[in-house]
Amino acid sequence: MSRSIRLAVIPGDGIGQEVVAQGLKVLTAVLPQDVKLETKEYDLGARRWHATGETLPDEELESLKQHDALLLGAIGDPSVPSGVLERGLLLKLRFAFDHFVNLRPSKLFPNTSTPLAGRPDIDFVVVREGTEGPYTGNGGSLRTGTPAEVATEVSLNTAYGVERVVRDAYERANARPRKKLTLVHKNNVLVYAGHMWKNIFDKVGQEYPEVTTDYLHVDAATIFFVTQPERFDVIVTDNLFGDILTDLAAAVTGGIGLAASGNINPTGEFPSMFEPVHGSAPDIAGTGKADPTATVLSVALLLRHLGYAPQAARIEEAVAADLEARGDAPRTTDEIGDALAARVAG
Amino acid sequence: MSRSIRLAVIPGDGIGQEVVAQGLKVLTAVLPQDVKLETKEYDLGARRWHATGETLPDEELESLKQHDALLLGAIGDPSVPSGVLERGLLLKLRFAFDHFVNLRPSKLFPNTSTPLAGRPDIDFVVVREGTEGPYTGNGGSLRTGTPAEVATEVSLNTAYGVERVVRDAYERANARPRKKLTLVHKNNVLVYAGHMWKNIFDKVGQEYPEVTTDYLHVDAATIFFVTQPERFDVIVTDNLFGDILTDLAAAVTGGIGLAASGNINPTGEFPSMFEPVHGSAPDIAGTGKADPTATVLSVALLLRHLGYAPQAARIEEAVAADLEARGDAPRTTDEIGDALAARVAG
Ligand SMILES: CC(C)[C@H](C(=O)O)[C@@H](O)C(=O)O
Ligand SMILES: CC(C)[C@H](C(=O)O)[C@@H](O)C(=O)O
Repeated sequence: MSRSIRLAVIPGDGIGQEVVAQGLKVLTAVLPQDVKLETKEYDLGARRWHATGETLPDEELESLKQHDALLLGAIGDPSVPSGVLERGLLLKLRFAFDHFVNLRPSKLFPNTSTPLAGRPDIDFVVVREGTEGPYTGNGGSLRTGTPAEVATEVSLNTAYGVERVVRDAYERANARPRKKLTLVHKNNVLVYAGHMWKNIFDKVGQEYPEVTTDYLHVDAATIFFVTQPERFDVIVTDNLFGDILTDLAAAVTGGIGLAASGNINPTGEFPSMFEPVHGSAPDIAGTGKADPTATVLSVALLLRHLGYAPQAARIEEAVAADLEARGDAPRTTDEIGDALAARVAG
Repeated sequence: MSRSIRLAVIPGDGIGQEVVAQGLKVLTAVLPQDVKLETKEYDLGARRWHATGETLPDEELESLKQHDALLLGAIGDPSVPSGVLERGLLLKLRFAFDHFVNLRPSKLFPNTSTPLAGRPDIDFVVVREGTEGPYTGNGGSLRTGTPAEVATEVSLNTAYGVERVVRDAYERANARPRKKLTLVHKNNVLVYAGHMWKNIFDKVGQEYPEVTTDYLHVDAATIFFVTQPERFDVIVTDNLFGDILTDLAAAVTGGIGLAASGNINPTGEFPSMFEPVHGSAPDIAGTGKADPTATVLSVALLLRHLGYAPQAARIEEAVAADLEARGDAPRTTDEIGDALAARVAG
């Protein structure tokens, strides 16, 4: 466990600034006195793109690399053409830093709202592949804008890429009490990628005899997310299915305001990046209505990744206690951050 | 309106036989006396594949083509490798008969169970593209089964294919009281296909000034399906996103036992095919537990497609009345079919 943390901070767009400020507040409050926290802020996102046309220059990528971890708020603004910042900044970071484990835990905390009747007991984690699938930018358009246009998107999958994320998911399942791992794909239609995923899933599974396994097509998985979410423990899936499933998971577990994520490079070759699942929500930016809890929970994932497990647990307990204790009156972004900082310090 | 219906029937696997029998029972009961119904049954599916290795021979495809419509139960069995029957039979029919409109209405009927608290008012229809996207079978695997394997899946999209389904969706939206159409895609990541869809969506929209439009990324759409499903009227989307969203839609509107679908060739060049969204459910096959309502509602879609709108409406009213009147005691497949047949005849 390092006694110093060099943290790169990318507040980004919209509510990104506001929620990241609270994440840093709680991080500072929870860290032991003798741990030195050095933060460096990076001005990346819509403002920068409008001002300079840049999304993520090479020197900045190089500079970001010199950190132990990255904390990101949110990227995106309606004033920027769809895809520019997503591909040029967010996905560029995930790919450049080989974040092949996109970790997204889902837990229904007490006293939070869920659209599901009966408040099922939800506590699972999605291990989403982060560097392959339909996210590689491999595609094209011919005769663009004409009635004869053809557009393609290629999902690229390698045994190398699938095996490493599947193994990571088995490790996580093996370390949890229920030891259950579900593969989600669509191997009855996407037969090439789907069968490769399934074969590797079965093969690696032989090394984890204590883990119970299951396979679901992605369409069926969405059904179980709303009818029987308690059946899931760890889920492993591809980049696009993971994107879809984790938004749905967030919706059924208290909303996108609570969903944390880690873009993890488990080998440690590159810094990992932690970010709330939600977007930049420009409609509520500056109003103080943004819930910083997802960012604070992402800070907990960050701490656990860097070896500060007790501090991570303190944050998670603080969030649970804060949600349980909260009344009906709405609180500002800042008030929630203060309440959480007070709990972890106390 | 033809005074005779030549109907090809593919009961298929598992509960397919049982639910199709009820669909035909209700169809016979609702049809005017002077309409001649000729049915021809086709033995296709797992049994046939095991017996002969065939999925859909050319002569049978040719013979199926000589019908006004197809009624399909369900395809698939765990004893058949995943993808064989899906690609070789079900998708082969959809592609060969150019079923570019995969129509999937979702309605929360009274007195049905939904996992959603508060029983929102749900009444929307998904127009899922049926002949392109990642469903074309365009992909491959290199060095299969080795640690150096690479597997691809190509999503193919043409302006020709997108424009015709988008136009169909505008027509449907324009004919409904709320006149609202939502495009669902993921154009911030799948930029080539996504931007083509969005551009065509905007262009065709100029011809429908009364239709209000909206765009959602697929991940965000899943959130609204559970938090605000009442916001949707007509949704148009690609083949894979439509597959995922319509299972989720079924789950929130009373379950997969009620979800009907039509694979429609709007030009009439080929027969359209009607089928419940659910699968063959081998675990309950033969137990009398299968709910035939989804098949019966698919028969209603079939009738409307063939020009029998009053009869289609009679079936839909019968289903609503049957669901409202039903008690807590479970009913068999046959009992539900009898009850619906009695209502439409009466
Ligand atoms: C913004 C977008 C590129 C991103 C994704 O699709 O991965 C987001 O939806 C997420 O889940 O982090
Ligand atoms: C069985 C499968 C090929 C099919 C699909 O993916 O289209 C099914 O899920 C459906 O929705 O009709």
